[in-house]
Amino acid sequence: MTTNEPQDALIVFTPSGKRGRFPIGTPVLQAARSLGVDIDSVCGGRAICGRCQVAVSEGEFAKHGISSHASHLNGFTKVEERYDAKRGLQAGRRLSCQTQLLGDAVIDVPPESQVHKQVVRKRAEARDIELDPVTRLYYIVVDEPDMHHPSGDLERVYKALKEQWGIDEVYTDLRTLTQLQRALRKGEWRITVAVHHGHIRSRQRIIAVWPGFHDRIFGLAIDIGSTTIAAHMCNMSTGEVVASSGIMNPQIRFGEDLMSRVSYVMMNPGGDEEMTQAVRTGLNALIFQVAEEAAVDRNDILEAVIVGNPVMHHLVLGIDPVELGGAPFALATNAAKTLWATEIDLAMHPDARVYVLPCIAGHVGADAAAVVLSESPHLQDEHWLIVDVGTNAEIVLGNRDRLLACSSPTGPAFEGAQISGGQRAAPGAIERVRIDPETLEPRYRIIGVEEWSDEDGFAEQAKAVGGVTGICGSGIIEVLAEMYLAGILNQDGVVDGAMAARSDRVEADGRTFSYVLSRGEPEIRITQNDVRQIQLAKAALYAGAKLLMDHLEIDKVDKITLAGAFGSHIDVKYAMVLGMIPDCPLDKVYAAGNAAGTGARIALLNNKARREIEKVVQWIDKIETAVEPKFQQHFVEAMAIPHKTASYPNLSEAVTLPEPKDVASADSSGDGETRRRRRRR
Amino acid sequence: MTTNEPQDALIVFTPSGKRGRFPIGTPVLQAARSLGVDIDSVCGGRAICGRCQVAVSEGEFAKHGISSHASHLNGFTKVEERYDAKRGLQAGRRLSCQTQLLGDAVIDVPPESQVHKQVVRKRAEARDIELDPVTRLYYIVVDEPDMHHPSGDLERVYKALKEQWGIDEVYTDLRTLTQLQRALRKGEWRITVAVHHGHIRSRQRIIAVWPGFHDRIFGLAIDIGSTTIAAHMCNMSTGEVVASSGIMNPQIRFGEDLMSRVSYVMMNPGGDEEMTQAVRTGLNALIFQVAEEAAVDRNDILEAVIVGNPVMHHLVLGIDPVELGGAPFALATNAAKTLWATEIDLAMHPDARVYVLPCIAGHVGADAAAVVLSESPHLQDEHWLIVDVGTNAEIVLGNRDRLLACSSPTGPAFEGAQISGGQRAAPGAIERVRIDPETLEPRYRIIGVEEWSDEDGFAEQAKAVGGVTGICGSGIIEVLAEMYLAGILNQDGVVDGAMAARSDRVEADGRTFSYVLSRGEPEIRITQNDVRQIQLAKAALYAGAKLLMDHLEIDKVDKITLAGAFGSHIDVKYAMVLGMIPDCPLDKVYAAGNAAGTGARIALLNNKARREIEKVVQWIDKIETAVEPKFQQHFVEAMAIPHKTASYPNLSEAVTLPEPKDVASADSSGDGETRRRRRRR
Repeated sequence: MTTNEPQDALIVFTPSGKRGRFPIGTPVLQAARSLGVDIDSVCGGRAICGRCQVAVSEGEFAKHGISSHASHLNGFTKVEERYDAKRGLQAGRRLSCQTQLLGDAVIDVPPESQVHKQVVRKRAEARDIELDPVTRLYYIVVDEPDMHHPSGDLERVYKALKEQWGIDEVYTDLRTLTQLQRALRKGEWRITVAVHHGHIRSRQRIIAVWPGFHDRIFGLAIDIGSTTIAAHMCNMSTGEVVASSGIMNPQIRFGEDLMSRVSYVMMNPGGDEEMTQAVRTGLNALIFQVAEEAAVDRNDILEAVIVGNPVMHHLVLGIDPVELGGAPFALATNAAKTLWATEIDLAMHPDARVYVLPCIAGHVGADAAAVVLSESPHLQDEHWLIVDVGTNAEIVLGNRDRLLACSSPTGPAFEGAQISGGQRAAPGAIERVRIDPETLEPRYRIIGVEEWSDEDGFAEQAKAVGGVTGICGSGIIEVLAEMYLAGILNQDGVVDGAMAARSDRVEADGRTFSYVLSRGEPEIRITQNDVRQIQLAKAALYAGAKLLMDHLEIDKVDKITLAGAFGSHIDVKYAMVLGMIPDCPLDKVYAAGNAAGTGARIALLNNKARREIEKVVQWIDKIETAVEPKFQQHFVEAMAIPHKTASYPNLSEAVTLPEPKDVASADSSGDGETRRRRRRR
Repeated sequence: MTTNEPQDALIVFTPSGKRGRFPIGTPVLQAARSLGVDIDSVCGGRAICGRCQVAVSEGEFAKHGISSHASHLNGFTKVEERYDAKRGLQAGRRLSCQTQLLGDAVIDVPPESQVHKQVVRKRAEARDIELDPVTRLYYIVVDEPDMHHPSGDLERVYKALKEQWGIDEVYTDLRTLTQLQRALRKGEWRITVAVHHGHIRSRQRIIAVWPGFHDRIFGLAIDIGSTTIAAHMCNMSTGEVVASSGIMNPQIRFGEDLMSRVSYVMMNPGGDEEMTQAVRTGLNALIFQVAEEAAVDRNDILEAVIVGNPVMHHLVLGIDPVELGGAPFALATNAAKTLWATEIDLAMHPDARVYVLPCIAGHVGADAAAVVLSESPHLQDEHWLIVDVGTNAEIVLGNRDRLLACSSPTGPAFEGAQISGGQRAAPGAIERVRIDPETLEPRYRIIGVEEWSDEDGFAEQAKAVGGVTGICGSGIIEVLAEMYLAGILNQDGVVDGAMAARSDRVEADGRTFSYVLSRGEPEIRITQNDVRQIQLAKAALYAGAKLLMDHLEIDKVDKITLAGAFGSHIDVKYAMVLGMIPDCPLDKVYAAGNAAGTGARIALLNNKARREIEKVVQWIDKIETAVEPKFQQHFVEAMAIPHKTASYPNLSEAVTLPEPKDVASADSSGDGETRRRRRRR
């Protein structure tokens, strides 16, 4: 190994371990490319972009069986000095395009120099995102026009792309073509082009052009919910989220929930266009907001990914959603779509591409597909139940062998609607509740205030957010579970009138009884009807999950993930106490946060992920609860608190479950609670 | 042959001669398809479209060696009776989808039932156009949505297209998708879709959808000239031209000729956008006009082809033409482009596709490419010179082995500009001239009047069109040639002052002499300067052609075609007398009319023709006259009348050429003239 011919040297790249021999003087970047080592570059070896940095790890020589000469590379070049002066170069780093192999060497490619670098996700159980952007930048030097060999500017750009980057079969949008001549002349025949690499080779397109060198492009991951629209803006070359923001969905004025919006369209001809207009206007407001937050030129936003439930999906695309309002719930399309931003009037680069994830079924939308992409149950062995709770619960169950999905009509109770004191999660809403099993006295926490209601300063802080205004979804789950644990509620969901003798919190309310949670203005009480609404909602959720378990022929699941705003704010042990979710060890139940938004981000940053989810969505078994007789049966059985047949291993370590008719105290301040304490955005 | 098993029968199709055996009861359409016989159908065998008609030619049986049974087909069906009652069926015709094979049969496929039918061109020397439309209609019956197997409407449309027509890998434009649900339900799951078959399989797209059966779609062939814009509207299934119209190019207000328009852009920032706007507005006026003329719904116009010179090409696409105004005359692109109609704001179906032919070089545009497509010199053995005369003459020379193109700066003299009495070809302009070689008295004809100036009724008719207003390009050619033939003009192009003694038509005009052609108001005279302008123009034209001949190393050409408005209105023998064109037998010189428009029509009707011209344009050798020193030399040599080195075989049969200083009479009323007499539109 050490007796090389002088004109030939060994190079070893870490961490890949790829190695090969190259003539003395070969630039390291070139050696890397011939070995298929993943090194980034926008300028193509012209010492402009600085993306191809490598570290020279001399200490590694021996380990790799290479004689440990001090330096087997050329010295730091003038070009690198210039780059260092202008943009800074970390100690020990070199530009691999300027570094020449003079003898055997070990070269380390740091993560940030890799094209396919990993974007590390915060959650421990989540897989990292591999960067594989669909749109990439290429700096090229284009031949000047020559009367002796007349050819179009565009054709000379294609020639440069082919010769300098090996990219051929490229097309160009007309709008980009109209910018090209000026860019070429302004950049003195040096331009940067953005190429959108469609999944089909013949669909590669130049979608933007800049004079000279340009290395900033951004993308948006957009999750259109019925209530809120959220957007993350990512730097497309690092994957980093540079700004995140959310706004209320302006369609709310046409109806709070999906079905009332579909009804609006049925009642008002042209209502679909109004709502399309509303959501697009909202999206643009959001785009302005994130672009401003990150100080990004909207013309540098070249990519967007959109997810949403089927009704939102249809409305943003300008498709009438009425068919989704009734059986057979036919989607206009269940395939992914790639569009120009201008086709849906988005205020970004006009030739930006927008990728819309596929819907799974008429009730299981592109948001559910994004959740699947984020959580990846199709790559797991465990039977995994993923629930995204909204007006409909979208439920996915399975593993790498089989994946099923359905939607279950939970209704809006979990979102605070149809509950006497219910409200959307917003400052002032009760979100946490504990009931003393001895005195039956409650204490609670409201959104926007750190203190519990029985702690000092609560009253003052509460006033600052406008007082206690109502109770939101997670608060309702907790109060019902605590009522059950305190014996106020029995297994059938009846508020026990006998308890009125023990506490004036339990009050007769016509022929039934209520529990008075807060005596302020407004008074917040939990009525028998409130309990029934939640029972119906949780039974629907449970029945949907159980139906999928039937199809998979399993009795319990290995793992549960609760996704979405509601899912990530409820305390999972209370969900178990109420019997919302099927049998599963408590420590295998996770909150995934906005998994749909994460899925959108993955699709934004990774082109292969798009093909992946398109395939998975095709492969998922779609179960329609409306046509499954067993759904009704499961539904009825799931009304009890907790579910009659569930055993919930290790739930009793977290709470003291009551013996029938026996009132015991609940562990309401254990580690589990502290660990899961989180603030709403 | 006559002892067939009864369950099997022989079918022979004429005129293709394709034959095969099929089970008794096989529909004739199905047999045709399996044999690859070219039979049209939109409805896919449902007896709706009537495109699949065949003729049963019993007399043909014996000839094809088939026993002559009276009828080996099923009887006329109820379905055919219904079709006949509703839409009419010629005697002897059957719908091949309803006709079953009961025994051996000979089936004739009439031309109009063929998909690839020929569109017969009027000119004898032109090849017919084979119909091969890029956009075709397909009637499909789509599965209704089923909750048990949820899939999108669009995906069920794809399924139907695949199952019923064998078409897969289809995409759909968003705008079409937004129409789909309604069309499916209105058509009760029977719809017609228009599929644009791009040249790449992955680019097949549904671009329009109609409820139920729809079989009318149209296309536009558009030729954007600097002065006029012409459009032909064709029925895309028959190829028939259903309406033709033309308008003035509204850009004229920015400058009469191309270079003055380019200057306008140089002088006025944003001038390119103004002119883009102007030409698009003009195009839309024209589209309204032809659609109204043919009573066609603009939404049924699904295809357009645009040709034009490079400046028009750039401006209609919204590309700044300034680069074309100076060396190196760089095109923004020299490739063909396919666009959405909406990308250039055309008032047709919004998802209609527009195909723009490729430009050949900075001065040789998509119009020249269309001329090549129309005339097809690349398929010939003869050396063919094709000249499209305008402000620039676009010149193509060659054959199947090699084809060259250049542009020559003739200036606007041929269009009547820079000529003292010159004007555009319009009513009142002198277009034909004869000069009596004895008396030197002229007679002439003006556009819009049948009579010659010396015939009865001329004065009255001329008054009706506003009198004699000037002289147009073809008139100038004729008057100069006749002046030469009458001895008024010598070989050097000098108006011979000595002739003033013979006729007062020859007048001193300062230091030179003029010929007074018309004594009306305005007076039309041919000045020495007018002669010089035409000499410069014809010398440029000749020099361009000669340059290409040099490159091909030939001394004379086998055939000449003059294309364009000017080219088809001049009398070719006078072009020869003046020495505008190189050596060629007179009977091998043709006028092709608007060959660019015809080329556009070919590209409109035949998808393969697009690929053909794209390849040919790449392959053409582009010669830039500005950088060829020999061009100047040819130019100087070509100033003489006629060209000194040309021999023009059989020209002397058409005209009596003067011996130097000898005045002879010209044959001015021969058959050649009568045959070529044509009216301007």
